[in-house]
Amino acid sequence: MWGGRFAEGPSAIMREINASIPFDKALWRQDIAASKAHVAMLGAQAIVTAGDAQTIADGLDAVAAEYEANGVPEDWDLEDIHMTTESRLAELIGPVAGRLHTARSRNDQVATDFRLWVRETIDQTDAGLEALQRALVTQAGIHAGSIMPGFTHLQTAQPVTLGHHLMAYYEMLRRDRSRLADARVRMNESPLGSAALAGTGFPIDRDATSAALGFDRPTANSLDAVSDRDFALDYLMAVSQISLHLSRLAEEFIIWASQPFGFVRMADSLSTGSSIMPQKKNPDAAELVRGHAGRIIGAATSLMITMKGLPLAYSKDMQDDKPPVFEAASLIGLSIAAMTGMVADSTFKTERMRQAAELGYATATDLADWLVTQADIPFREAHHITGAAVKLAESKSIALDALSLVDLQAIDARIDERVFSALSVEASVAARASYGGTAPSQVSKQVAKARAALGLSDTTTGSQS
Amino acid sequence: MWGGRFAEGPSAIMREINASIPFDKALWRQDIAASKAHVAMLGAQAIVTAGDAQTIADGLDAVAAEYEANGVPEDWDLEDIHMTTESRLAELIGPVAGRLHTARSRNDQVATDFRLWVRETIDQTDAGLEALQRALVTQAGIHAGSIMPGFTHLQTAQPVTLGHHLMAYYEMLRRDRSRLADARVRMNESPLGSAALAGTGFPIDRDATSAALGFDRPTANSLDAVSDRDFALDYLMAVSQISLHLSRLAEEFIIWASQPFGFVRMADSLSTGSSIMPQKKNPDAAELVRGHAGRIIGAATSLMITMKGLPLAYSKDMQDDKPPVFEAASLIGLSIAAMTGMVADSTFKTERMRQAAELGYATATDLADWLVTQADIPFREAHHITGAAVKLAESKSIALDALSLVDLQAIDARIDERVFSALSVEASVAARASYGGTAPSQVSKQVAKARAALGLSDTTTGSQS
Amino acid sequence: MWGGRFAEGPSAIMREINASIPFDKALWRQDIAASKAHVAMLGAQAIVTAGDAQTIADGLDAVAAEYEANGVPEDWDLEDIHMTTESRLAELIGPVAGRLHTARSRNDQVATDFRLWVRETIDQTDAGLEALQRALVTQAGIHAGSIMPGFTHLQTAQPVTLGHHLMAYYEMLRRDRSRLADARVRMNESPLGSAALAGTGFPIDRDATSAALGFDRPTANSLDAVSDRDFALDYLMAVSQISLHLSRLAEEFIIWASQPFGFVRMADSLSTGSSIMPQKKNPDAAELVRGHAGRIIGAATSLMITMKGLPLAYSKDMQDDKPPVFEAASLIGLSIAAMTGMVADSTFKTERMRQAAELGYATATDLADWLVTQADIPFREAHHITGAAVKLAESKSIALDALSLVDLQAIDARIDERVFSALSVEASVAARASYGGTAPSQVSKQVAKARAALGLSDTTTGSQS
Amino acid sequence: MWGGRFAEGPSAIMREINASIPFDKALWRQDIAASKAHVAMLGAQAIVTAGDAQTIADGLDAVAAEYEANGVPEDWDLEDIHMTTESRLAELIGPVAGRLHTARSRNDQVATDFRLWVRETIDQTDAGLEALQRALVTQAGIHAGSIMPGFTHLQTAQPVTLGHHLMAYYEMLRRDRSRLADARVRMNESPLGSAALAGTGFPIDRDATSAALGFDRPTANSLDAVSDRDFALDYLMAVSQISLHLSRLAEEFIIWASQPFGFVRMADSLSTGSSIMPQKKNPDAAELVRGHAGRIIGAATSLMITMKGLPLAYSKDMQDDKPPVFEAASLIGLSIAAMTGMVADSTFKTERMRQAAELGYATATDLADWLVTQADIPFREAHHITGAAVKLAESKSIALDALSLVDLQAIDARIDERVFSALSVEASVAARASYGGTAPSQVSKQVAKARAALGLSDTTTGSQS
Repeated sequence: MWGGRFAEGPSAIMREINASIPFDKALWRQDIAASKAHVAMLGAQAIVTAGDAQTIADGLDAVAAEYEANGVPEDWDLEDIHMTTESRLAELIGPVAGRLHTARSRNDQVATDFRLWVRETIDQTDAGLEALQRALVTQAGIHAGSIMPGFTHLQTAQPVTLGHHLMAYYEMLRRDRSRLADARVRMNESPLGSAALAGTGFPIDRDATSAALGFDRPTANSLDAVSDRDFALDYLMAVSQISLHLSRLAEEFIIWASQPFGFVRMADSLSTGSSIMPQKKNPDAAELVRGHAGRIIGAATSLMITMKGLPLAYSKDMQDDKPPVFEAASLIGLSIAAMTGMVADSTFKTERMRQAAELGYATATDLADWLVTQADIPFREAHHITGAAVKLAESKSIALDALSLVDLQAIDARIDERVFSALSVEASVAARASYGGTAPSQVSKQVAKARAALGLSDTTTGSQS
Repeated sequence: MWGGRFAEGPSAIMREINASIPFDKALWRQDIAASKAHVAMLGAQAIVTAGDAQTIADGLDAVAAEYEANGVPEDWDLEDIHMTTESRLAELIGPVAGRLHTARSRNDQVATDFRLWVRETIDQTDAGLEALQRALVTQAGIHAGSIMPGFTHLQTAQPVTLGHHLMAYYEMLRRDRSRLADARVRMNESPLGSAALAGTGFPIDRDATSAALGFDRPTANSLDAVSDRDFALDYLMAVSQISLHLSRLAEEFIIWASQPFGFVRMADSLSTGSSIMPQKKNPDAAELVRGHAGRIIGAATSLMITMKGLPLAYSKDMQDDKPPVFEAASLIGLSIAAMTGMVADSTFKTERMRQAAELGYATATDLADWLVTQADIPFREAHHITGAAVKLAESKSIALDALSLVDLQAIDARIDERVFSALSVEASVAARASYGGTAPSQVSKQVAKARAALGLSDTTTGSQS
Repeated sequence: MWGGRFAEGPSAIMREINASIPFDKALWRQDIAASKAHVAMLGAQAIVTAGDAQTIADGLDAVAAEYEANGVPEDWDLEDIHMTTESRLAELIGPVAGRLHTARSRNDQVATDFRLWVRETIDQTDAGLEALQRALVTQAGIHAGSIMPGFTHLQTAQPVTLGHHLMAYYEMLRRDRSRLADARVRMNESPLGSAALAGTGFPIDRDATSAALGFDRPTANSLDAVSDRDFALDYLMAVSQISLHLSRLAEEFIIWASQPFGFVRMADSLSTGSSIMPQKKNPDAAELVRGHAGRIIGAATSLMITMKGLPLAYSKDMQDDKPPVFEAASLIGLSIAAMTGMVADSTFKTERMRQAAELGYATATDLADWLVTQADIPFREAHHITGAAVKLAESKSIALDALSLVDLQAIDARIDERVFSALSVEASVAARASYGGTAPSQVSKQVAKARAALGLSDTTTGSQS
Repeated sequence: MWGGRFAEGPSAIMREINASIPFDKALWRQDIAASKAHVAMLGAQAIVTAGDAQTIADGLDAVAAEYEANGVPEDWDLEDIHMTTESRLAELIGPVAGRLHTARSRNDQVATDFRLWVRETIDQTDAGLEALQRALVTQAGIHAGSIMPGFTHLQTAQPVTLGHHLMAYYEMLRRDRSRLADARVRMNESPLGSAALAGTGFPIDRDATSAALGFDRPTANSLDAVSDRDFALDYLMAVSQISLHLSRLAEEFIIWASQPFGFVRMADSLSTGSSIMPQKKNPDAAELVRGHAGRIIGAATSLMITMKGLPLAYSKDMQDDKPPVFEAASLIGLSIAAMTGMVADSTFKTERMRQAAELGYATATDLADWLVTQADIPFREAHHITGAAVKLAESKSIALDALSLVDLQAIDARIDERVFSALSVEASVAARASYGGTAPSQVSKQVAKARAALGLSDTTTGSQS
């Protein structure tokens, strides 16, 4: 493969460190597709004869059929999927196989193959996210009025609805999908025909191969085209953010499933038991989703480090682009699927949630707001008055709305009996009807909008509270 | 500030670990702007009186004027820029200042301020990249025909032009700018009015504050709005990729400036000397740009780690969002500016580059291509023949085109004297006129296209070779 | 400073990107100390006269006194702390100041200064950890018998004691301290005298400067000495692991302080309130400790990335070694101090913990173990029987030890009434007296051992249950 | 395996995300060894009968023999290597197999297995480093007097010897080995017997299993023992630093092998060719070593992120500890081996190196030092005078020692003809005989010391210059 120039063959260690076939065989479909597009163009441009082009195309189909049936053989001496395929092609069709590599190099070939692979993977990841969004909006629709404690700092803050909480993740995934879409547009340029680094003197038609492979246009600079792995980084960064979002929801499921919270019962199908403790039902799927964020972000970090400071054009370091991308794609696919199952199949213990919402003085802000609205007290002062009321209630170990009017008026005389109507969790939630707020009316609107965006039928199914 | 409830004041260590004013004072302009938009809306909605709204707005202007004149005071007891400003406002206008915080929380306030800051920084970073692109296309236009060795694996590969090489970076920055543009669109939603996490019961108008602050629309979910730092990560990821691109160019400048290469003479203004070695002129600016990639990627990693596994809604961990963003923004700003200077002010030693292009058998591919085209030999076989020719030339310590025709024909009889015209670096470069290739004609076209995209006047200035 | 060779002065951007004085002024004490050791040696070796050496030493003392009184001036033109000090020295004592830099370079000078700084910081970090260990063993001694639920997967697993739980962190910190100690030994070699990279021709005495600065020996290779930042990485890696340990304890405090858990009441002095929700008491210190892990690990990542692929010897990229180290040292110092306060000053709600331990079938393993021990059933079968018992108890919504003997015997006839004595949380805890186990007797032993290691007086203070 | 409690089986996605057998089968030898130690102890303590213990031990041997012969089967339903082995054991020896899991849990089992694996890997990594050190000292001995340009900022700084340069890497690896040794000592404690998290009530003998498995002692806290992955992080951090050192040497080989440098000819056996450019001989092995630093550091980052904020005790996230460690161990093993080959088999072109050392005014510092020593000029002034001399030589395009005495005296009258003897590269190198300096005499001493430390025979082989 390297011509007649090397006196020695590669040593054993070199064969092992150099061979990428153990992982880049995953690109075989893309490699065949790109080679077919290339040879069709070579034929159309009369760089090879029509007959030779057809022979090569048929040969590539035969190789593909073998791969499909038996997998891709791993021969380290053939280094990578490109040489593996070309070598097998030569066995099948003879020396004419040697015309396939005219006007291209492995540098543009692998850049093309890998882009095609990443593009398909973006589409798969996006489809997974859409399924998870559907699961979220379905549960959010059911629970548009289910009251739970909203937390900040994991301290009970204000009552919110479970539907509202789940829709927060819908929004995160909406951004994630837009990030994938942006990456897809940016990467959809064809490097094929850039050859080793400088372009080629053969009269190739890059627009033709670009169109045949579904790219929007050929890349504009051949040196850049073979040196660029932005598209892989864009994908890794997008999935890093997805994994962060999933890790947050996973953390919540894990906390909610703990005995002291008891907000959720995870499906048996996504839990495991213990080898020693017979009562255990562990939220393993959620923990693995959370843990995978580490490996996915590690993959993104890995490729950034590898690319740092590489001079143009192609350097062999860039062969380390594929393992992190393959690993991240696999982990994010599993994570999204597992999370979709968790969201769809978990049983939310709404009664327990509602009880928890009543603890922790969650409606103290409502008291402060009441003071502002009804007694025209500046918010800062109202906040201070309410703090005193909470302190008194805490010292009596009772809820805020269990304080007597006398007690409240002793703190501030402007308080009157109307205040009690503001201090229930239902009133608190219903009041927050500002755009994007937690009021069931608002949540239902957001769910309806999301369902429309997802192409789901409108539903008048009454929400559960 | 925390109401009447705490028995003890914060301890010394808490004051120090908790205070964000040492760094978030950088947000003061955004904080003032968002408060003014908020209070104008409160007035318009009659949540506060028109008079109070005006008093507060005037007070905010007065605070801003003080900050402008004297800087922002750092009092750790006031924790952050929000409390610092509100506290000073209260000193200036009295208790009516307490009405400003009606229907908002620090959670939506900081989310709004920080988005505004990041949005402005995106615009500044983009402007910096545009300036660097201008420097690149200017030099590329001058050097569209300047021949240098193109490298892969830092081994001489094929002759390319310096203009082609520089335009590869133009392409990278084009993607970087599109990444910033995508991030800007995605982030441009207003969290203001999300309050602590649940929205508010006051009859606010989020569309009004959104429009006043230049956002496209309000965020759709209040829980998400106060928990989301995607916009900061989008920025950090975009600048990480920029820093990677700059690190590659910096690496090239450093290598090119070394005595054995001698391809470039860096401007004195971007170099430094040695405290001990009087002859030294070091490419410090390039090294710092390369080194800063570490800190910038570290900043992106940092925020990803901090956000991992945080339950909704706001957690104090998220206060650690700002230092990495501020640091990365500062470092990338300096890096882009330094690189712009390097590109604009360096002297490329084109004669030395051209000589180097003639070494290393850079036109061997041209021999192989000639065999394919002129003798109809399959590329693989042509590649093998050429390998033998290179080996022979190496053993004689001469250039490829210094081999005699007899020698070449001994290797393969199909070679004839026409071959020599293909083996000059000029011929090699000129031949690679495929779209995106290194031929001066191609490079000039790409430069013209880029100049148009940048709004630069067309130039008929003859290129230097 | 750079000799007479540069035609232009550094441009504005260069002054800014190049200047390290804004951060490396933190090294001033080390810089003075190293210079004094160096000049004393120059005098002793007669490389400078005794009189000059004394003049320079006195001048350095004078500069130090100025720094102590007024801080270090930041003049970007003087680049760094080394030139700032030497420049001021020259102003004070005249041209003889120029003899100080004989036989050294900024490369070995900064390597020496920074090592000294890191060495002192290691000692400070270690002292902080020791204080935190003391707080842990004190609380562990008090709570050697306080029963709480032990969790795996955040699911109630088996009863443990709070003392046992806290002592787990004692062990982590023990490893952390050994890591710091190892780093200290490894780094304690003096680079001074390595000069720019090659050593020097002056007859210096490196053993003398090494000893004067408290190093164990001089470094053995001058090229390595100026290129090496392993000591900074060792420190960053050690503090990364510390931050991970602290982040785990912080997470536990945050979860324990939530209303549904209610295991701990954090000290007011380490909590904050809300600007909008008057009832809130947020575990901000714990969240900041957890969040800081992101920045600290980001700092370690940053320096690794910066160092990757740098050729020998010194490159300017290495100037980016200090900001991450300074930041990590500051953050870990604050984090350890805050955590020490949290451990010492929190109120553990032991009654609530004990109640929680009785939920979740925490003693199911004890039933399985009883079956193995008393009925000679293989563990796997015992595990299965117990699973059936838990299922039955769950279906009846009762505790495991509330099942009747009849119910239990219906599951397996080999169960008899003795089983009930094994199913209390006290019995469960007391039984686990294997070495390192959770039995109060074991915990007390470990506490006593730890107290001895920390030099704390033995205490016979009865533990609280 | 999970007892009789689960109504549904794990779903398809759960089987896939949960199964660790695809990677943890690598632990099979350690798992068998730990199980044998455990059951021998159970027998010795009469927790199981001697007969049962023997039956189980024999059964484990039989399972091991099957694994050795046929590999470990991957059945996702059996989750991991522990259940796979126990399941096969039960098939072979029947229900008595169920007694093996008495007094242990998978939590302490996997902690033990993985420690054993990491411990062995530390030893292998250390052996690899020792081999690389031997290669380095051998070449350094040969080249103790071979002069090359020493670089700072990749600019020619001062002449050094190649032996000195290579010995810098010997020093780095010495620290790396001490880091591995420290990690080994710290990790060598046995978690076995910690059970799920709380220890066990069975009368086990942890000292016995600890000793049987070669540990120094049992771990002191069972909660810590099952929650701790410090040992994996210690290993990952140590190999990260190794990979950084190797990346630096790899970078140097790549630069040195470039045509403009031409300092080294890499062995054919560690280079590859191009599919398109017949003349290419690429330093792929060096590039892969450099690139692998990205993946190795990414692996360390990954595990840090995964561990952040995990509450005690075991969480399933920790299953993601193994893939990064396995990957890093494999990559560092290959990298060390490849680098050993590169160092041992490369041909250093010492003549070319020496010529390069004479360029770039590398002996300017020697002129400055001469002025200090011979003319008693303060160093700073001498530095300035030399700068002027360099400037003059540059303007004449000649070397420093080609300046005439008249020219030099025009710059400073105190210069006399003795100066020329100081300006040769040989004189420069020989002068730097301070401890650790580049003088051949010094380098030979360091090589001799290193050879002794490595147990290599003393060599009087004359060095090559």
